Amino acid sequence: MDISIGRGKTARRAYGIDEIALAPGARTLDPTLADTSWTIGGIDREIPIIASAMDGVVDVRMAVLLSELGALGVLNLEGIQTRYDDPNPILDRIAGVSKTEFVTLMQELYAKPVQPELIERRIAEIKSQGGIAAVSLTPAGAVKYGSTVAASGADLVFVQATVVSTAHLSPESVSPLDLAGFCQEMPMPVALGNCVTYDVTLQLIKAGAAAVLVGIGPGAACTSRGVLGVGVPQATAVADCAAARDDFFNETGKYVPVIADGGLITGGDICKSIACGADGVMIGSPIARAAEAPGRGYHWGMATPSPVLPRGTRINVGTTGTIEQILRGPAGLDDGTHNFLGAVQTSMGTLGAKNLKEMQQVEVTIAPSLLTEGKVYQKAQQLGMGK
Amino acid sequence: MDISIGRGKTARRAYGIDEIALAPGARTLDPTLADTSWTIGGIDREIPIIASAMDGVVDVRMAVLLSELGALGVLNLEGIQTRYDDPNPILDRIAGVSKTEFVTLMQELYAKPVQPELIERRIAEIKSQGGIAAVSLTPAGAVKYGSTVAASGADLVFVQATVVSTAHLSPESVSPLDLAGFCQEMPMPVALGNCVTYDVTLQLIKAGAAAVLVGIGPGAACTSRGVLGVGVPQATAVADCAAARDDFFNETGKYVPVIADGGLITGGDICKSIACGADGVMIGSPIARAAEAPGRGYHWGMATPSPVLPRGTRINVGTTGTIEQILRGPAGLDDGTHNFLGAVQTSMGTLGAKNLKEMQQVEVTIAPSLLTEGKVYQKAQQLGMGK
Amino acid sequence: MDISIGRGKTARRAYGIDEIALAPGARTLDPTLADTSWTIGGIDREIPIIASAMDGVVDVRMAVLLSELGALGVLNLEGIQTRYDDPNPILDRIAGVSKTEFVTLMQELYAKPVQPELIERRIAEIKSQGGIAAVSLTPAGAVKYGSTVAASGADLVFVQATVVSTAHLSPESVSPLDLAGFCQEMPMPVALGNCVTYDVTLQLIKAGAAAVLVGIGPGAACTSRGVLGVGVPQATAVADCAAARDDFFNETGKYVPVIADGGLITGGDICKSIACGADGVMIGSPIARAAEAPGRGYHWGMATPSPVLPRGTRINVGTTGTIEQILRGPAGLDDGTHNFLGAVQTSMGTLGAKNLKEMQQVEVTIAPSLLTEGKVYQKAQQLGMGK
Amino acid sequence: MDISIGRGKTARRAYGIDEIALAPGARTLDPTLADTSWTIGGIDREIPIIASAMDGVVDVRMAVLLSELGALGVLNLEGIQTRYDDPNPILDRIAGVSKTEFVTLMQELYAKPVQPELIERRIAEIKSQGGIAAVSLTPAGAVKYGSTVAASGADLVFVQATVVSTAHLSPESVSPLDLAGFCQEMPMPVALGNCVTYDVTLQLIKAGAAAVLVGIGPGAACTSRGVLGVGVPQATAVADCAAARDDFFNETGKYVPVIADGGLITGGDICKSIACGADGVMIGSPIARAAEAPGRGYHWGMATPSPVLPRGTRINVGTTGTIEQILRGPAGLDDGTHNFLGAVQTSMGTLGAKNLKEMQQVEVTIAPSLLTEGKVYQKAQQLGMGK
Repeated sequence: MDISIGRGKTARRAYGIDEIALAPGARTLDPTLADTSWTIGGIDREIPIIASAMDGVVDVRMAVLLSELGALGVLNLEGIQTRYDDPNPILDRIAGVSKTEFVTLMQELYAKPVQPELIERRIAEIKSQGGIAAVSLTPAGAVKYGSTVAASGADLVFVQATVVSTAHLSPESVSPLDLAGFCQEMPMPVALGNCVTYDVTLQLIKAGAAAVLVGIGPGAACTSRGVLGVGVPQATAVADCAAARDDFFNETGKYVPVIADGGLITGGDICKSIACGADGVMIGSPIARAAEAPGRGYHWGMATPSPVLPRGTRINVGTTGTIEQILRGPAGLDDGTHNFLGAVQTSMGTLGAKNLKEMQQVEVTIAPSLLTEGKVYQKAQQLGMGK
Repeated sequence: MDISIGRGKTARRAYGIDEIALAPGARTLDPTLADTSWTIGGIDREIPIIASAMDGVVDVRMAVLLSELGALGVLNLEGIQTRYDDPNPILDRIAGVSKTEFVTLMQELYAKPVQPELIERRIAEIKSQGGIAAVSLTPAGAVKYGSTVAASGADLVFVQATVVSTAHLSPESVSPLDLAGFCQEMPMPVALGNCVTYDVTLQLIKAGAAAVLVGIGPGAACTSRGVLGVGVPQATAVADCAAARDDFFNETGKYVPVIADGGLITGGDICKSIACGADGVMIGSPIARAAEAPGRGYHWGMATPSPVLPRGTRINVGTTGTIEQILRGPAGLDDGTHNFLGAVQTSMGTLGAKNLKEMQQVEVTIAPSLLTEGKVYQKAQQLGMGK
Repeated sequence: MDISIGRGKTARRAYGIDEIALAPGARTLDPTLADTSWTIGGIDREIPIIASAMDGVVDVRMAVLLSELGALGVLNLEGIQTRYDDPNPILDRIAGVSKTEFVTLMQELYAKPVQPELIERRIAEIKSQGGIAAVSLTPAGAVKYGSTVAASGADLVFVQATVVSTAHLSPESVSPLDLAGFCQEMPMPVALGNCVTYDVTLQLIKAGAAAVLVGIGPGAACTSRGVLGVGVPQATAVADCAAARDDFFNETGKYVPVIADGGLITGGDICKSIACGADGVMIGSPIARAAEAPGRGYHWGMATPSPVLPRGTRINVGTTGTIEQILRGPAGLDDGTHNFLGAVQTSMGTLGAKNLKEMQQVEVTIAPSLLTEGKVYQKAQQLGMGK
Repeated sequence: MDISIGRGKTARRAYGIDEIALAPGARTLDPTLADTSWTIGGIDREIPIIASAMDGVVDVRMAVLLSELGALGVLNLEGIQTRYDDPNPILDRIAGVSKTEFVTLMQELYAKPVQPELIERRIAEIKSQGGIAAVSLTPAGAVKYGSTVAASGADLVFVQATVVSTAHLSPESVSPLDLAGFCQEMPMPVALGNCVTYDVTLQLIKAGAAAVLVGIGPGAACTSRGVLGVGVPQATAVADCAAARDDFFNETGKYVPVIADGGLITGGDICKSIACGADGVMIGSPIARAAEAPGRGYHWGMATPSPVLPRGTRINVGTTGTIEQILRGPAGLDDGTHNFLGAVQTSMGTLGAKNLKEMQQVEVTIAPSLLTEGKVYQKAQQLGMGK
């Protein structure tokens, strides 16, 4: 499996979601028989989709809507929603700024400190409207705001960074987050991520994670690979981490779901992630295209506001329909970005998978990359076709 | 052959038509000596090309013309032609609608029920003009309209879905099609598809198929891989299914042709499909470019009208010549989309293949991918780039 | 070496010129010490480059200029030059026609028969100006005009078709060219091609070829792979055919040069072809860009005028400098299309090769394809960069 | 490891920087704990980045600034700075010339001879402002100006050509540079390059090199692969050459740093080069984008002025910020071209590497290629697409 890339340097070939396709087998299924339900942190959901904790994707209203529609949305507790009493004029400014002034504006807006009382208020707002209060903190935020969240009545906490590990070295002046201690102390389940390896997944599960987020580098609003050189193609990362979940389950009988996070755009991407072993997916930009999304047709990454090393860009994803259309249809678009539930059910029917556990076992082929839009625009321009 | 894409997940590398090229050997042949004839369901044809059962491709007139020219056209019995007494104003509306209103219009137009008397009438119209009446039903349509077609005098029936299997699970309220029973009861030969594996091909042949259609995912007006993640690169699919045909023939002496269906645009694509083992090909968009095609320069997929999960898009393929030019030349274009018969004969001459059985044995190489102009035009039109 | 692309179908991976790069070793060389001379049909040349027998590339004047500059140009004896007493107005019309009317015009212009007296006259014109008269016939043309050429005083004859073989099947009404007989009967050396395999190269050499042309499919004005599905990536084809040359030489002591023909654009392409084993290269479009080229900035393939199956397109290659600049510099462009001799010498110096035999032995690496212009245009458009 | 590309021709698969990505392991690190310091020729530097000896990148002022910021800049001693008393109007002309007249202008401007007294003056100017005087000569220049530089008080000399070897064949009229003798005679350390193999690296180290430059072909302003066919993908070249460094160190205890030179645009590229084994990197175009760079937003290669075989093009790289922003931040851009130090530290933190030696050991994966915005802008500008 190890390939020599030079004397004394070997590397493993890792595969991305775009490089695989799912192959039908001997059985097919009526899509209505496909059961897409799953459980995360004791919470049963019909749709294996979680909206990312990003400021252009989830606010209180979206969290409630996503709950009602059978999915889940995670509120970022260190973003616009908890720094500003009224986030709306702030979101208007982000949507209105020019491309060249975007980074500077973000650095300015995110310099305002998080207000603990807004953490409490946002969680209460979600709960009072009957939504599931899933919220997100960075490891540093977990140290600072952990006790606030513990007392807030939130249903599920995500502690997420680009990369987490149970063996983090910090300067002496900083007291790093003890992941295992945090999981034990919080009164609600804690999902941890992101990671990309079998070993770290196992460590996070043993630290008490209620779910593990998998994915470093592949997201549409994420530029880790360009800026840092860091990234693991997602098909391989999901398969590796799912293997840790399965081994832990076989040993202990405890099942901790693995969630593919990053770079998933279409229904096909979601189906392929599950086929690689994921229990659910976390998606950002596809949800940012909902009419109800707080981003007003824009989407940006969580590392964007970093004053020192901003990463991620603001992408104009546009608005293509309601969140209900995007999740449950009926589809008004035929490009795979509407009716994700229908897509997963139809794919499961095509592949003969009765539930997500069977979907994790379908045959995967390595296939030539699709003729992407980009390649076509290129060549079309060469051929003199205008747009 | 199995490649690890992660712990406990292996995948097979499958090859697409664009990834292969045909390699000349020691013998060449004058193209006039190349015999391209074949037989499907007892019907002898000079050209191994079948026009797809799509509403923009085949109507009564095209079915007759294709028969006269030595090929075959399949009429979709669940489309515009059998829902509307006069399909012309409907086809005008489809050609005239804006891109954004297309899906909604299609859902509205295809909501009108199929009329069994129109099934009978269209078949009679083809027969009365001397054409071969090859017609198409979905599995659900076969249950509903099978007896109508049985009595209609059609020469050949195609039962086609994105994926068929002999082991389909349905809800109790639905009585699924028994493929073997249907093949036995129909008074004319029945072609079945689509499938992509050795096992399913063998099952369909044993169920009584007169021909098996091979291809899931690769078509220009098909977006299965994007929406569902499902697809098998066509070179591999055709080779696998052709092996089932050969094994069955060696055991029983009965030869059931395998037809490559989907994603074929140029003469080169057709030649390569046969070299992978196909007996014939089914093509849609290249035929939709004929002046006589019902689509008025547009082409759309069979899953487009789905009210829940529309797939496929309307492509402005344009009109480039007569159906005679496209099938038999003389070519007015030099991009491989005119004179398919001449292309197959010239390719066979270059490769020294005297007939299609020899063409199935020519040497195949895996070659760096070629982004042909034709594929780009197709895709660019899908993306809304005008010319 | 054989890869399974499906049950019972194996294929070989073949490599294109764009997929390889040359790797420096332990020795370097001053470029002035690099000896690029070679011999074809007893004729010594300083530059291992032959201009293709295409109507936009070589006329009488170009043949003379190429001879003077140390290279070679081949005159097409079945093109404009031998059909028309005065080719100039014809070439003006080809350069002036619109893209859509090009194929029709070509079919009309090439319908005029070849005039044997013009064959004689053109050869005499080249000889009278001190040029080397290298000329080209198709196999069918060799049957018809062989005796005219035999008597004409030409120095070298190329018999070229897309694919030649010593085992060509013809209809009874046609008397095919006997390659071995032709080589024996002609009073001057005969180069044969094109082919792509070890076996056919060996057969052509044994038939008496003075040189073998290698290449099917890769040319810029050639669309064999798209139209016919036929093509062999050039690095593999050249290496295979060069092995036949070497084996024949080792057995008999007779050295028959192998010429890479098709798809070569830059000095780098030429260097890589030699490194794969070629003794020389045949190039068309790079020479068509000379101010003195008959194509007036346009270039088109030899199969373009086919009335039945036209292939190849007219490409507007533009005019970038004199033929002297293109072959010997000084370069006015820095993109690898000027000063081919300097490029080969500099490459040989970099790689430590003192002569072409050593250049055939330098180390080749398989390298990721260059970031091509096309890919960049694509992405640049996506990023909003105008042109 | 050897792959057959044809009969009797094998090749090695070499990997480029774009084909790899870095994979996090079990440990992470606070970026403030990442130590990026290194030593070259006895000079300690905080940042492992050297600005290329190119006329658009380094002049006296930039050399001083780069020294102050913890990096290093190399002054080209055979360029504009040493041919012209006042380089400013010359640099203005280069920035102002049209694309078509660029090569001719360069050939004219570089025809003026180098003035030894300007070599002395420029070095004195750097030293008098407290900068580190790192300077560059070609092998031919080293013969001519070696004694001038020896007496100049420079701190470090780079002798660089596209390819160097210790076994260079020259015509008798030319006395080639004796690399070992030169290293011994010069009073300051001498860095040698470029090379791409284990053997040549070892020879250069044994010849007395204080550092070895690695990279042939991959640079943004370098067209070696297109013009000459020569190039080795950088991940493989760096790994091979680093292995020679390690073997020599294990034998002798002497550590000679290896510097990756060419084609590096983003922070991610720098991180990946180190992970392949480099001790530092040399970059040109990313530094040419600094407001203080002498190129006025333009960048061109060292082989551009060659009167016979010009290579490299003038690229409009634009001006994106100060050199401090580019090296140390804070970043005003989020595309990986600002704050290289921060990027390296963050990457090291993500990967758990405490220092550069640990960074050389992180896990590398082969990943599907990423076409980054930065690379596209570069190439697009080469192609003349404005922004």
